[in-house]
Amino acid sequence: MGSVLKVNPRVRGIRAPTGLQSLGVDKPFKTVTDVSSGDPHRAGIAPISFVRQVLAVCLYPELLKNNSLPLDVRQRAQRLLGACAGGSVGSYSVSCYGLPHVQKSVAEFITRRDDGVSSHPEDIIFFNGSQKAVSLILYLMACREGETQTGVLTPIPCPHNLPSLMDEVGVKLLPYQLTEERGWAVDLHELQRALNAARGHCNPRAIYISNPGNPTGHVQDRETIEKVIEFAAAEGLILLAEEVYQDSVYGQDKEFVSYKKVLFEMGQKFSETVELISFHSISTACMGECGLRGAYVEVINMDPAVKLHIGNMQGPFSPPVLPQLALDIMVNPPTPGDPSYKTYAQEILKIQTVLSQNAQRACEFLNGLPGVSCQPAMAGVFLYPRVHFPPRMTEEAEMSGVAADVFYCQTFLEEEGVCLGAGCENGQDGQSYLFRAHVWKLETRTRFEKKEHKKKIHGHFGHRGHLVNTF
Amino acid sequence: MGSVLKVNPRVRGIRAPTGLQSLGVDKPFKTVTDVSSGDPHRAGIAPISFVRQVLAVCLYPELLKNNSLPLDVRQRAQRLLGACAGGSVGSYSVSCYGLPHVQKSVAEFITRRDDGVSSHPEDIIFFNGSQKAVSLILYLMACREGETQTGVLTPIPCPHNLPSLMDEVGVKLLPYQLTEERGWAVDLHELQRALNAARGHCNPRAIYISNPGNPTGHVQDRETIEKVIEFAAAEGLILLAEEVYQDSVYGQDKEFVSYKKVLFEMGQKFSETVELISFHSISTACMGECGLRGAYVEVINMDPAVKLHIGNMQGPFSPPVLPQLALDIMVNPPTPGDPSYKTYAQEILKIQTVLSQNAQRACEFLNGLPGVSCQPAMAGVFLYPRVHFPPRMTEEAEMSGVAADVFYCQTFLEEEGVCLGAGCENGQDGQSYLFRAHVWKLETRTRFEKKEHKKKIHGHFGHRGHLVNTF
Repeated sequence: MGSVLKVNPRVRGIRAPTGLQSLGVDKPFKTVTDVSSGDPHRAGIAPISFVRQVLAVCLYPELLKNNSLPLDVRQRAQRLLGACAGGSVGSYSVSCYGLPHVQKSVAEFITRRDDGVSSHPEDIIFFNGSQKAVSLILYLMACREGETQTGVLTPIPCPHNLPSLMDEVGVKLLPYQLTEERGWAVDLHELQRALNAARGHCNPRAIYISNPGNPTGHVQDRETIEKVIEFAAAEGLILLAEEVYQDSVYGQDKEFVSYKKVLFEMGQKFSETVELISFHSISTACMGECGLRGAYVEVINMDPAVKLHIGNMQGPFSPPVLPQLALDIMVNPPTPGDPSYKTYAQEILKIQTVLSQNAQRACEFLNGLPGVSCQPAMAGVFLYPRVHFPPRMTEEAEMSGVAADVFYCQTFLEEEGVCLGAGCENGQDGQSYLFRAHVWKLETRTRFEKKEHKKKIHGHFGHRGHLVNTF
Repeated sequence: MGSVLKVNPRVRGIRAPTGLQSLGVDKPFKTVTDVSSGDPHRAGIAPISFVRQVLAVCLYPELLKNNSLPLDVRQRAQRLLGACAGGSVGSYSVSCYGLPHVQKSVAEFITRRDDGVSSHPEDIIFFNGSQKAVSLILYLMACREGETQTGVLTPIPCPHNLPSLMDEVGVKLLPYQLTEERGWAVDLHELQRALNAARGHCNPRAIYISNPGNPTGHVQDRETIEKVIEFAAAEGLILLAEEVYQDSVYGQDKEFVSYKKVLFEMGQKFSETVELISFHSISTACMGECGLRGAYVEVINMDPAVKLHIGNMQGPFSPPVLPQLALDIMVNPPTPGDPSYKTYAQEILKIQTVLSQNAQRACEFLNGLPGVSCQPAMAGVFLYPRVHFPPRMTEEAEMSGVAADVFYCQTFLEEEGVCLGAGCENGQDGQSYLFRAHVWKLETRTRFEKKEHKKKIHGHFGHRGHLVNTF
């Protein structure tokens, strides 16, 4: 069947199985715990009531008459239905960008968030999730041929899926290493080194930024952001700023500052020239609506024809309506005085508390284990520990013919039923032995606390036993 | 910004504006009526209650306790929630193909529909709408280079968006003309002619079929389907069977027969060799859930590696969950004895009656106009009339520099506020003057019934006045 795209299996990592059958019988566990994905609801975190109530009413408007639902829920649903063609979430979006009402809501949210730096509805485009947005935009930038192949400077570690995504659209991943010992901060010299190394071999066109960092949990400070912007301006690079975890910063004295805000506070020299595409999504830590697949991008300083193309990349398909409504709710949550405010505020606080407490406890535990080190996370849903393997593990991996980190994850999955994310999925070279694990729940610990079991896995596989106890 | 894909503006046609401002002031109408899109809810058709009730409960499971909702609604929602990771529609699908529970439901539906010809869950893959599925599969097949460029035999007229979609992924559209005087039936000689003409210039790999036909409303009979399958088998072509309007056949003595069923009833020589991908969607006439964006494909006789690639085309992104649940409801509607059955059956009957009555009335009206002819539709939501332009209209179009059919639609939109679909969007050459219009409502007629207005448009633009009165 024609030219099937080649996908590099190296960056695929492993997937948690959907059923235990595929792992064979006689396992010391009854279910598989997948900690490699950041999916909150799958990990048992409850959705935000206000979001679900409004969406339920939008789907079944008879509920507008249901007085047991809060008044602000019904009012919001009524307003959102008014923004849909024919008053139904079942109609196509009227524009390939999305619903104009939601574009306006998002622009107003960004303006508030950025202390008055204005955002414009026509710069907002909706997508089926932020990864889909990244994929389509990279595809638009892609030129596959030799020295003119499009290159994108990419942080290592980067969000999992990003390496396979670049591979699929034919964009060259140009790695810039984040500085582990500084909590995975961006190093400007390293950015310059990576760019210089790439020139002549391909055509570097953009820098990918993940802030707050996925999977590192690092939060960039204003000074770093300014320097990255200056670098992009000097080198003529487009900024691709993935800012999905902006709602989940919990590190002390840390706060999220958007690239858009800093760019516009640096004066016209930058604010009128540097091309910026920033990404946000409903699959965040607090909303957690991964299954709905909704995201927006804000497109700054792009040629209007290119912006139109970004919108048209989805078209002739209009983006799904319901995730857009979810975005509208996310950027306009209940405010003090609204009937739903108290519940909403409690739910958000609970999620943020779970995140920050679990991240801290798991990090402390990991750093107490021999041969394991972990930088504290300041935001987001992951920890990203480094494990120093005993030589016999590396040998065993080599004999089995897969990268050591993937081998470790596979064995961990098969013997303990816990699915970690191999560092290679985050662009790591496979020799570094880093692993991604979400911090949503710590209950997996208890599963392995029986002494005899501990002994068995200690004996067989070095540190694996300790790690099992952590997540 | 890199290599922006070139999109042929010729196949773009026009879009209904989202606001009247873009059309200027002082119009003799207050709203724009878009009859170019098949979107039922936008045209005022109500959604199916059972579908919306179940989805609302899935989104807000507190409604499981709401006794005013029918029991079968709550039971179905409970079952569907059990199929979602973490019991939430907010979790990612566990597999890039979709939820295994829904794969199974769809396979069972197909088996029932095809009188026992079995379908297998692992052959079912979910997508964000059938157009997205077509687009990704064409992309997978695409080879852009010269004589080896992938070609797809495509009916003319074809579903609107298909020409632009093929253009975007770089597949060559190889037109085979449907026979207008036989109600837009497929002609096997024409299929062979189109293939012969293409050989040597590109690499023909597949035949695109739309049955029931979009926009023609033609329903293929078993004999035709057998011949098309024999042709595909003899020429080594993949069958791409878009069967989205299978739920809306209203022509007398007409019934939908799937390509899959006929293929498997033709014996092993065909059933074990001919590659078939069939498409179905929740954006059908009866469900009408266009805004949710949900579709499945059934993949038959494909190399397992290719099938895996089709699934992976979406992944690392898992398909949205809610449209999958809507698909599950579509293929498992309430049955006699269920609390929701009576309402459901009434709603479906009402939609089917509106479709068949409107299609007949509008067709009769059109055929009564001088210079207009229209084949009766047997299924689906469109009529596709031919208009014979007076010479001065063609001249006026030429002077304005656009194709005559687009010019006609633009003027029609600007002067009457009705947006027709230009035939060029359906792959027509622009000299034929055919137009697509849905048959959901006839109320637009009344808008133009004032004598003085009629006179004005008659005087100015030939048949346009008549046509306005029809939809």
